[in-house]
Amino acid sequence: MPTYCLTLEYDGTDFAGWQIQPRMRTAMGVLQDAIRTVTGESPALTAAGRTDAGAHAHGQVAGIGLERAWGPDALRHALNAVLPSDLAVRDAAVAPDGFHARRDAVERSYRYLIVCRDGNAPVSRRTAWTVRGHLDLEAMRVAAQRLVGTHDFAAFGSAPRPGSSTVRTVTSISIDRHAFDAALGAASASPILETVIITVSADAFLRGMMRSFTGALVKIGRGRATAGWLASLVDTATGRDSSLTVAPARGLHQWSVRYAPAQFHQDTRRAA
Amino acid sequence: MPTYCLTLEYDGTDFAGWQIQPRMRTAMGVLQDAIRTVTGESPALTAAGRTDAGAHAHGQVAGIGLERAWGPDALRHALNAVLPSDLAVRDAAVAPDGFHARRDAVERSYRYLIVCRDGNAPVSRRTAWTVRGHLDLEAMRVAAQRLVGTHDFAAFGSAPRPGSSTVRTVTSISIDRHAFDAALGAASASPILETVIITVSADAFLRGMMRSFTGALVKIGRGRATAGWLASLVDTATGRDSSLTVAPARGLHQWSVRYAPAQFHQDTRRAA
Repeated sequence: MPTYCLTLEYDGTDFAGWQIQPRMRTAMGVLQDAIRTVTGESPALTAAGRTDAGAHAHGQVAGIGLERAWGPDALRHALNAVLPSDLAVRDAAVAPDGFHARRDAVERSYRYLIVCRDGNAPVSRRTAWTVRGHLDLEAMRVAAQRLVGTHDFAAFGSAPRPGSSTVRTVTSISIDRHAFDAALGAASASPILETVIITVSADAFLRGMMRSFTGALVKIGRGRATAGWLASLVDTATGRDSSLTVAPARGLHQWSVRYAPAQFHQDTRRAA
Repeated sequence: MPTYCLTLEYDGTDFAGWQIQPRMRTAMGVLQDAIRTVTGESPALTAAGRTDAGAHAHGQVAGIGLERAWGPDALRHALNAVLPSDLAVRDAAVAPDGFHARRDAVERSYRYLIVCRDGNAPVSRRTAWTVRGHLDLEAMRVAAQRLVGTHDFAAFGSAPRPGSSTVRTVTSISIDRHAFDAALGAASASPILETVIITVSADAFLRGMMRSFTGALVKIGRGRATAGWLASLVDTATGRDSSLTVAPARGLHQWSVRYAPAQFHQDTRRAA
């Protein structure tokens, strides 16, 4: 049975998240409907991860096995022809037999978009969190370094199954300011659409982890908490901490998933 | 009568453009309703420019004179409290007496956002034009230089009033590629959200001029037209050219308006 790896982008505004649920419009449900319409098959579907209601995806990965063999481009075009405008297949590829989008993923990256603004931000209101005042990025960067590495992140999120491990390995965090009118130069009196982007890569994420990281880092950026406070939460294995603000889903962007080379995949699966 | 200068941002998706029209939801109509609700006054309103249905604004400027004096911040907060989420007052300031948002403007800047993608782009579908294939930015930049300067742009748009001048002065054009995952590095297998941003500044714009510039430059970027073709259209004073593709409104972003220092304003008005 040929296996396909689909890379998906969706605007999460009108989805009740990724995971299929009865009587809710979900990204997975809409994708499964399209697969059924196009192929006449109802294959099992694996996904790199779940996204929250309102959160967006730029590189969600899904794996499906089909009875009939398709050219990957033909499959992509056929699915995009029936999918609604808020979900698209960006790429389709033939995957190694038994490809599992979640188990085979070795690294995930998420981005969180923040617009610094005293007031509403109409153009980015679906895709970013609006935060009043100035953010001290240097303080945020220093504090964020304490999150890098292998830690018990129980204070920042929950495991997919109760009782399973809350230890994860964060491989990198970067915090960047993007001033989109830089090209207009200093002479311009233009308002600055200033966006802060937090990018986190990890082997896997707990539920709520990226939004809790963001809430904590923004608190530090606004001078309302210290790097020491954040450090004290790492390795606190007693569950979600009530002093943490969870940033809203609309600013969360699932970004990419990294897989090991195909040979390594197969070895991994053989060993498992 | 105190005069105020309001800087506005709006998501144009659900507006039938800026200019008020009977029975249509327009940005100007929504702003006037808010001013009436908050101040109890119905002042004349001047604006730096009009925007098309579906086009966005980040720094539209409006001028109003009110009978009652307001603190600028109090006026901004009061208006934002009643405005819908797709329109916001970013800034309010006291303007020189007789400030006229259109007549006093000395330079306007617009940006056009293009996502290069073979397929739909769900997250940016309201704010960018999706173009298939690769764009040769160097060819676009070389061709764009021919648009800079004082020319009769009749081939690219129409004057606000029939018979009035179609001569405008373009002060700068820049074309930049923004690869938003640059921070993730070369090791990442992430899909690239590649956005091309065309920024044009001019003393004023004809109707359709920015969207026609974009259509022409994209044609050149895709290798379907030459810089010579674009040059042949400049100073063609016979009206809109049928070989031009007009880029869709959704990718158009009014960006900023530049005003001369207040003293210069007053001199200009006195001379006029």
